[in-house]
Amino acid sequence: MSDNQHQTEQTNQQWGGRFSEPTDAFVARFTASVDFDKRLYRQDIQGSIAHAKMLAKVGVLTEQERDDILRGLEEILIEIERGQFEWSVALEDVHMNIEAALTKKIGIAGKKLHTGRSRNDQVATDVRLYVRDEIDVILDELSRLQFGLANLAQKEADTIMPGFTHLQTAQPVTFGHHLMAWYEALQRDFERFVDCRKRVNIMPLGAAALAGTTYPIDRHLTAELLGFERPAYNSLDAVSDRDFAIEFCSAASLLLTHLSRASEELVLWTSAQFNFVNVPDRFCTGSSIMPQKKNPDVPELVRGKSGRTNGNLIALLTLMKGQPLAYNKDNQEDKEPLFDSIDTVKGCLRAFADMVPALEPRREVMREAALRGFATATDLADYLVRKGVAFRDAHEIVGKSVAYGVSTSKDLSVMSLDELRQFSDKIDADVFDVLTLEGSVAARDHIGGTAPNQVRAATARALAELAQRHG
Amino acid sequence: MSDNQHQTEQTNQQWGGRFSEPTDAFVARFTASVDFDKRLYRQDIQGSIAHAKMLAKVGVLTEQERDDILRGLEEILIEIERGQFEWSVALEDVHMNIEAALTKKIGIAGKKLHTGRSRNDQVATDVRLYVRDEIDVILDELSRLQFGLANLAQKEADTIMPGFTHLQTAQPVTFGHHLMAWYEALQRDFERFVDCRKRVNIMPLGAAALAGTTYPIDRHLTAELLGFERPAYNSLDAVSDRDFAIEFCSAASLLLTHLSRASEELVLWTSAQFNFVNVPDRFCTGSSIMPQKKNPDVPELVRGKSGRTNGNLIALLTLMKGQPLAYNKDNQEDKEPLFDSIDTVKGCLRAFADMVPALEPRREVMREAALRGFATATDLADYLVRKGVAFRDAHEIVGKSVAYGVSTSKDLSVMSLDELRQFSDKIDADVFDVLTLEGSVAARDHIGGTAPNQVRAATARALAELAQRHG
Amino acid sequence: MSDNQHQTEQTNQQWGGRFSEPTDAFVARFTASVDFDKRLYRQDIQGSIAHAKMLAKVGVLTEQERDDILRGLEEILIEIERGQFEWSVALEDVHMNIEAALTKKIGIAGKKLHTGRSRNDQVATDVRLYVRDEIDVILDELSRLQFGLANLAQKEADTIMPGFTHLQTAQPVTFGHHLMAWYEALQRDFERFVDCRKRVNIMPLGAAALAGTTYPIDRHLTAELLGFERPAYNSLDAVSDRDFAIEFCSAASLLLTHLSRASEELVLWTSAQFNFVNVPDRFCTGSSIMPQKKNPDVPELVRGKSGRTNGNLIALLTLMKGQPLAYNKDNQEDKEPLFDSIDTVKGCLRAFADMVPALEPRREVMREAALRGFATATDLADYLVRKGVAFRDAHEIVGKSVAYGVSTSKDLSVMSLDELRQFSDKIDADVFDVLTLEGSVAARDHIGGTAPNQVRAATARALAELAQRHG
Amino acid sequence: MSDNQHQTEQTNQQWGGRFSEPTDAFVARFTASVDFDKRLYRQDIQGSIAHAKMLAKVGVLTEQERDDILRGLEEILIEIERGQFEWSVALEDVHMNIEAALTKKIGIAGKKLHTGRSRNDQVATDVRLYVRDEIDVILDELSRLQFGLANLAQKEADTIMPGFTHLQTAQPVTFGHHLMAWYEALQRDFERFVDCRKRVNIMPLGAAALAGTTYPIDRHLTAELLGFERPAYNSLDAVSDRDFAIEFCSAASLLLTHLSRASEELVLWTSAQFNFVNVPDRFCTGSSIMPQKKNPDVPELVRGKSGRTNGNLIALLTLMKGQPLAYNKDNQEDKEPLFDSIDTVKGCLRAFADMVPALEPRREVMREAALRGFATATDLADYLVRKGVAFRDAHEIVGKSVAYGVSTSKDLSVMSLDELRQFSDKIDADVFDVLTLEGSVAARDHIGGTAPNQVRAATARALAELAQRHG
Repeated sequence: MSDNQHQTEQTNQQWGGRFSEPTDAFVARFTASVDFDKRLYRQDIQGSIAHAKMLAKVGVLTEQERDDILRGLEEILIEIERGQFEWSVALEDVHMNIEAALTKKIGIAGKKLHTGRSRNDQVATDVRLYVRDEIDVILDELSRLQFGLANLAQKEADTIMPGFTHLQTAQPVTFGHHLMAWYEALQRDFERFVDCRKRVNIMPLGAAALAGTTYPIDRHLTAELLGFERPAYNSLDAVSDRDFAIEFCSAASLLLTHLSRASEELVLWTSAQFNFVNVPDRFCTGSSIMPQKKNPDVPELVRGKSGRTNGNLIALLTLMKGQPLAYNKDNQEDKEPLFDSIDTVKGCLRAFADMVPALEPRREVMREAALRGFATATDLADYLVRKGVAFRDAHEIVGKSVAYGVSTSKDLSVMSLDELRQFSDKIDADVFDVLTLEGSVAARDHIGGTAPNQVRAATARALAELAQRHG
Repeated sequence: MSDNQHQTEQTNQQWGGRFSEPTDAFVARFTASVDFDKRLYRQDIQGSIAHAKMLAKVGVLTEQERDDILRGLEEILIEIERGQFEWSVALEDVHMNIEAALTKKIGIAGKKLHTGRSRNDQVATDVRLYVRDEIDVILDELSRLQFGLANLAQKEADTIMPGFTHLQTAQPVTFGHHLMAWYEALQRDFERFVDCRKRVNIMPLGAAALAGTTYPIDRHLTAELLGFERPAYNSLDAVSDRDFAIEFCSAASLLLTHLSRASEELVLWTSAQFNFVNVPDRFCTGSSIMPQKKNPDVPELVRGKSGRTNGNLIALLTLMKGQPLAYNKDNQEDKEPLFDSIDTVKGCLRAFADMVPALEPRREVMREAALRGFATATDLADYLVRKGVAFRDAHEIVGKSVAYGVSTSKDLSVMSLDELRQFSDKIDADVFDVLTLEGSVAARDHIGGTAPNQVRAATARALAELAQRHG
Repeated sequence: MSDNQHQTEQTNQQWGGRFSEPTDAFVARFTASVDFDKRLYRQDIQGSIAHAKMLAKVGVLTEQERDDILRGLEEILIEIERGQFEWSVALEDVHMNIEAALTKKIGIAGKKLHTGRSRNDQVATDVRLYVRDEIDVILDELSRLQFGLANLAQKEADTIMPGFTHLQTAQPVTFGHHLMAWYEALQRDFERFVDCRKRVNIMPLGAAALAGTTYPIDRHLTAELLGFERPAYNSLDAVSDRDFAIEFCSAASLLLTHLSRASEELVLWTSAQFNFVNVPDRFCTGSSIMPQKKNPDVPELVRGKSGRTNGNLIALLTLMKGQPLAYNKDNQEDKEPLFDSIDTVKGCLRAFADMVPALEPRREVMREAALRGFATATDLADYLVRKGVAFRDAHEIVGKSVAYGVSTSKDLSVMSLDELRQFSDKIDADVFDVLTLEGSVAARDHIGGTAPNQVRAATARALAELAQRHG
Repeated sequence: MSDNQHQTEQTNQQWGGRFSEPTDAFVARFTASVDFDKRLYRQDIQGSIAHAKMLAKVGVLTEQERDDILRGLEEILIEIERGQFEWSVALEDVHMNIEAALTKKIGIAGKKLHTGRSRNDQVATDVRLYVRDEIDVILDELSRLQFGLANLAQKEADTIMPGFTHLQTAQPVTFGHHLMAWYEALQRDFERFVDCRKRVNIMPLGAAALAGTTYPIDRHLTAELLGFERPAYNSLDAVSDRDFAIEFCSAASLLLTHLSRASEELVLWTSAQFNFVNVPDRFCTGSSIMPQKKNPDVPELVRGKSGRTNGNLIALLTLMKGQPLAYNKDNQEDKEPLFDSIDTVKGCLRAFADMVPALEPRREVMREAALRGFATATDLADYLVRKGVAFRDAHEIVGKSVAYGVSTSKDLSVMSLDELRQFSDKIDADVFDVLTLEGSVAARDHIGGTAPNQVRAATARALAELAQRHG
């Protein structure tokens, strides 16, 4: 008997009584999921252990059967982690692989484990456990990155750089303030993953194929054993819902969008033209042809990986569109995009959390850049308003001063008082105080503003919150 | 002077001092947003009123100026709502249109309103106010649909239909149970919009262009006047963050995905082949060529509209990818996708909330369908397990019985005892109790199961929660 | 009788015989398409004229009926274009609106026009005619932009700028060469729209509802009258195919992706840090708060609009996913994304085609930038190879020279011969020839290379091709 | 020395001269691509062989060096295909792995192979060669599926089934006609892949890093050796263009959209409610819990895989959005989505091409279904038109007949002449000819219509074209 035929027979042992011919060999491979769902082995075993305990509690299994099952599963867990477990594509998926191994190990009690459940609720349970575990890892890594940002921002609360809108010099800000903008976006990501986790942490187990089961199961007990908030309230929904995967992928897309923006800025800042920040060599790579190159590979790659998370999100939304209830085979396609978004989020967070504390701002270069580009023009307008000019008129006056500055290549702060007074006789010698960079940033002194003491307050609030988070 | 030139000059009054030539006429149209952002007029005025009150409180405006501004804005509001306001593309956007009208109406005080803010924080504030208002409308409409579902489900708690997996008859369920699966999905949507609303309800105002402002503004006061939870903590983030729009669009995509699934089922159920449900004529339309047609247009159209929400989500994610801080003109593109998702959600919810209570299940047809297709095969397997057969062996026995049934065109419940005993001598006369539809559904009697009393419990819980929601 | 009821009755005249109650008023609005499909009026009339001519030719209409129809339709066309036509939502769509007006105008012959066709094939025909017309406009506008690029590139074939990889200075290139990179991408867009047009230009008319018609129609004649390549070969496919819309939207997404990349570069180049290019004031706008700002709005907005085209593409792909044949109401949702992509492409091309010839390169700034950043390091490596060093070893030698240059703030071209010879004794005085910018670009003298004479050859080839295109 | 350090040093040999510290170990893994790009090994070697031949021809390599390189590369190819090649993550990518092995094998000549090229043009060349090869495989598999469809359609040209619009019975069609609708969609896919191939088949090699090279390369020769249509005309574009990957992914999304629609129909048709088609057991799988289940896994999975291709398309579009020229590290992210779409297309085509010829239509069930649902109502209306009634009036008359039929549960063909004449006295005894299914389909006898002889003509045309395609 060929190896292939043998495998096909193995498969058919699980659901083959009604079938008159074995599965086509290519179809068996095409429809198998074990290559990617074996990653769920730990959660599959965890779920089976809870299920077995519950079945014993309600009398469906004997204590002996339960103990055999637990022992068998623990052995299998060890085998898998040691790389000694032989996965079989013919057994389709992680569930069948583990169950077949269990039955081989402990005999008939293994066959009883599947009582009162189906692969439909089993896989939904496994994936939810897996996502929950991964969200916890992600929350930790996010916190580490936020900590790095808040720390660096605290150190750089007084470092002045040009703030940009439209990538044109707008107003001076502090580098610490800019870093705290990244922090705030990540804070929303943190909250979104926490909100997502609430909806992940609902237990499908007990929904069986779609309608529940005729066995006297105790879903509250299983939920408690597995740390779920509660059992799902509707069995049809429980096996067909993939919201949690989509919501996770949405949160991942937003996080990567944020990292893509920070990456874009790092790429700009490390260019020769900006030269605001140095990224240490260990986070960069070189060129096979241009010996002088030092490329900011990490931010570039992270920026590119935002494509991946958007793609995974669309993959899942397309997948679920128009599917009738309850479980359809289509849903097997939920795993790879989800797993890929999880891996992407973890990898990018790790790369950023490692790199951010090592960023080396070039304070003098930033300051120089802020001195150019009429960054304090708004301060001049505000000065005029304080002298009684309506804002819109002040804007017009300063606009003309800048046009003059462009044509004479002079920034506002280096014009003489006479030059400035061409445009308004409200301008006096005290104008030069508001045209300094330090005066400009210090004046934006309200919650959320770029004044150094506001930035310090923001970092203090952030660090306190982070400390409490892990308290 | 041509009309066009005149308009261009009007525009340049707002930011033109620095410019040496007027904006190109096509560019002016191409970059203007007033055609779509005028929809924000109410929130723009609401924000300006709060801003004016705050400016007066901190002494930047006199009480007289404040009162003039408030009166002027209220007049403008009335003019807009009466259709008497003349919108000008040359004035670019809703903000400039309203401010120009205000200044025309009340003179110099109008020009002072823009003190301490920028269009960058103004538009972010307007959009957040708008989305917050619309979420509240959406939550009400979602509740109305959920109420319709729970009510109908309560009435149909005993109505038996075939439950499907892979669109193949799987096990009998009740129609009420199926409707409650839809309910659960919508419940998650409700929670997601509530979570989204938390992050929408943060105030950007005071961030000004990007760095905060030099005026002694009181952002806590403005936030309180506008009902915001708090001011945004970082000005750079406040003007460049569009997370709330993306998160809204994600929640909209998931909701539409759910409605697309329910729609797919309604389309199936109203086909001649299923014929499970009648949708009243008033929700259907006909054909211009085929006189017999009665088409389920509403569910079809809603199913199709899931494309729209997915598209809007991707539009916004693409938009934000890789943008450096802070505000860039790209962000003007955030509005149309967002508005379209809002309109789509509201329209589809209204259509479903109107239609669902009018659905007419064909109970006899559903019951007939459940009687075919070996829907109680799992019950037979469970019966064998209770007689001591291991589940996997019972599965094999029933598989063979079904293969026999397929070849002889007999469902399990119409086979004789002798025929059934060909496959296992554990089968006795009491088997026929478990092969009835009523016995099958009643046996799935645990939380989340399809047993009628579980469905009634679920609808009671739902209706109580809905009552409290609006208590 | 209320206006609303009246409208509903109008609707039901078209397909109402089978219906027992009028359409719900909200449903009528929700399912109507006239608000957006009236844009197809010209193509709808064009299609009807051809259909009427064909029906007369095959004897289904009399010549008198045909003439009445043609006259009536021409009058309607004029009314629409003059803004005198009254569109009715109750009549659902552009087709019913025009047919009702025709019947009102010419009586019973109007009712005969719909013989042998259905709205299903009619709308598919209208949209294809519309897209074909718009592709022709787009091809012209693309050519205009390509012409502007090739022209400017020809003028700037000798202008040296730093070429970047990873946004790090890589090697000197010419500005003309860079512009021709944009040209090449647009050339592929041109070819893609041409290929798309082939598949657009197939005629669905005659497919009727889904199966063809019992009238003796002559589809080849209608196709000829409408300028279609041929009739569609399968009626079921003809009414359910929306490939042409998706393929158009794919081509649009790629085009906008290209424009987003060019826009990104323009935004970079107009920043104070790069300062490579000036965009004239008429393509820029200012800030409501910062008087000094001159923002590159056009490229920013175009960059943002890439979100829109990606969103429209996904909207259509989601829409069509999993739809059974033939026509479903879902398909009504095909128009708005398609129209929006068409408008976006036309607007962005116009903006770019106007702006590109007006770009003002700052040649000295570019040259200065190229002199920094070790842009000729590869040339030094190539020099060593010519002296017999293996490329990988030369790379290592130059890498060390650059490390030395970084630490001593000296570019390669300003090191002394002795300094250079620290790293390899193969370096002689002739090295300084290869370290000049002119030497570097001139040496890349093969097809596709950046040598000025290659750039001139490329622009000549491009301009010749463009001339022939419109010959 | 630890293994890790050793690997890092290996890496730095390639570009490390300028670097002061080794790459961080996690960064090395995070930025390495060899795990997925090693799939390109064959094309990488093919490209290197052509490059070496060209370099020898122009005198950059000696004949001996060229021969050593060719021999070394051929040995490496064999080692890889035998699974004996050791891939190193420290060497980053497929290119560096192969080059390092070559140098180890043949010494200094290996180091010379990289003369006149860069990884930037090398990887672009490899991927294009790979995609070109895969398109050829895909075109063959598409043809095989089209052949299966045309063949089956020919056999089923007379088999009558209900044609649907809105999933409501519309008009009778033939099963052969329906299959040919699938065929036509696939024909467009075929053409799109052919068009895509034209734009894939352009050679980037010679663009080097971004600007071309100073060596006297002959790009026409390399292009000829590699079977490329021509060298790319612009070096900056050549290394930064990923259109070909996006265009491939667009074509893949459309193909999968088509397969998702055919799959949806197969899922419907194999449901108990439709029961139109049997899919042999070997293409189905069963349930772990419900012994009676036979699930149409293949079409369900293919339907689901449309999510994957849409996701990959969006991944690439997001990736390229807003990237400045030329090569950026982001682009490394192009491969996995592209490879996944290639694999998905090949797998789904194979599954369908295997399955389609094995489909077993249930002709009697289809015919029965067509007899119900007033499928011939349009024929009755057309009959009335032929008797002189205007189409719109005929539509109204038939609508009323159908309403009567619905209320009396009688199809049109079983009403008595008197019953029919209630609605119009134009109806005579000859009406019953047009109310038969055979009469209905036969009457749609024009190109593209469902008449059996038209279907036979369509299949003949298709089979002839397919025969010629491989002639």
